Amino acid sequence: MGVDPGTWKTGVGVIEASGNKYAMLHCEVITLQKKAPLPERLKKIYQSLCELIKIYRPEIMALENIFYAKNLQAMIRIGEARACAMLAAAEHSVEVAEYLPTRVKQAVSGNGHASKEQVQQMVRRLLTLEKTAPSDASDALALAICHLHTKPALTLMAAAGPKQFIARQV
Amino acid sequence: MGVDPGTWKTGVGVIEASGNKYAMLHCEVITLQKKAPLPERLKKIYQSLCELIKIYRPEIMALENIFYAKNLQAMIRIGEARACAMLAAAEHSVEVAEYLPTRVKQAVSGNGHASKEQVQQMVRRLLTLEKTAPSDASDALALAICHLHTKPALTLMAAAGPKQFIARQV
Repeated sequence: MGVDPGTWKTGVGVIEASGNKYAMLHCEVITLQKKAPLPERLKKIYQSLCELIKIYRPEIMALENIFYAKNLQAMIRIGEARACAMLAAAEHSVEVAEYLPTRVKQAVSGNGHASKEQVQQMVRRLLTLEKTAPSDASDALALAICHLHTKPALTLMAAAGPKQFIARQV
Repeated sequence: MGVDPGTWKTGVGVIEASGNKYAMLHCEVITLQKKAPLPERLKKIYQSLCELIKIYRPEIMALENIFYAKNLQAMIRIGEARACAMLAAAEHSVEVAEYLPTRVKQAVSGNGHASKEQVQQMVRRLLTLEKTAPSDASDALALAICHLHTKPALTLMAAAGPKQFIARQV
C-alpha cells in the first residue's frame, strides 16, 4: 500500500505483486471537505486508511518522505497527514517504509526528476491500467511500485550485511 | 487539557477551573524511546492522550500552534505530534483550540516574550504547586491556563457578534 499524504487530498494505492507482474487492487483519493476543522479532516484520513488496511491487509505501507515544501506551514500540514498514515499502520502492525520523491520517480520512470505526467504514464503502463489514475492516487501507486522495486535489493543487502541496510529510511 | 506536542517529549496538563481558581488535576511528560520507530512513537502519544481524555473527559484540548522551528524537518515532526493530539481529541469529540506561543506567554505571565523559566514560575504560582513542573508539562499547563483566560473574552465576543470570533485559530 502506497500513501501520498496531504490534509486536503491523500492518495492511496494498493498493488499486488506476483513475480515481475504487478496488479492494482485499489486506488483512491481521500478528499477532505475544505470547511471541515483540521482535527475532523485528520480523523477522516486516519479512519479511511484503517478501513483500507483492514480490507487489503498490506504487507507494508510505503510513505512519502519529504524534505521540502513551499513554506513552514505546508511542512506542518504534511507532517499532520503523514502521522495519520503512520498511526493507521502502527495500530494494525503494518510496517512503514519511507521513500524520497526522487527515489520514487527514479524507481518508476528511471529518472529522479521525471514530471508528474511522466510518472502517471509509467504507473499506467506498469499496472496496465485502462486510463491514468488521478495525480494523487498515481503518486501513491508509484510509492508502492517503488517499494516492490527496492525490496529485492534491500533483502539482498540485509542478508549480506549488518543492520544499517534495513528498509526504513527515516 | 493543554498539550505541548513533540515526537520525543509531549507535555500534557489537565486543570480544573472553579471561578477564578485553578487546580491541577494531572501533569505528565509522555517521553518516547529514542530508538523506537516513528510510527510506534506516534502511537504511544496517541494512545496516552486517548487514555487521559477517557479519564479526565476535558471540555477542550488547548494545543500549541507553531509557525516557526529551527528547520523544515523539525516542522514535519511537530506536525506529526500535533496530529496525534488532534486525532485523540477528534476520536473522543473533544474540541481543539489552538494558541500561539506568544499568546500563551502573554496570558500566563503578561509578557509575550517571557522566558521558559518565567512561564514555569507563573504556572507554579497560578496553580499553587509545591514545585515547578517539568518544562514540557509546564508548557502544557500554561496552554490550559491560556485557554481559561481567553475563554471568557471569546464567549463575550461570540455573544456580541458574528462568527469570526470563534475560539479556533487554525
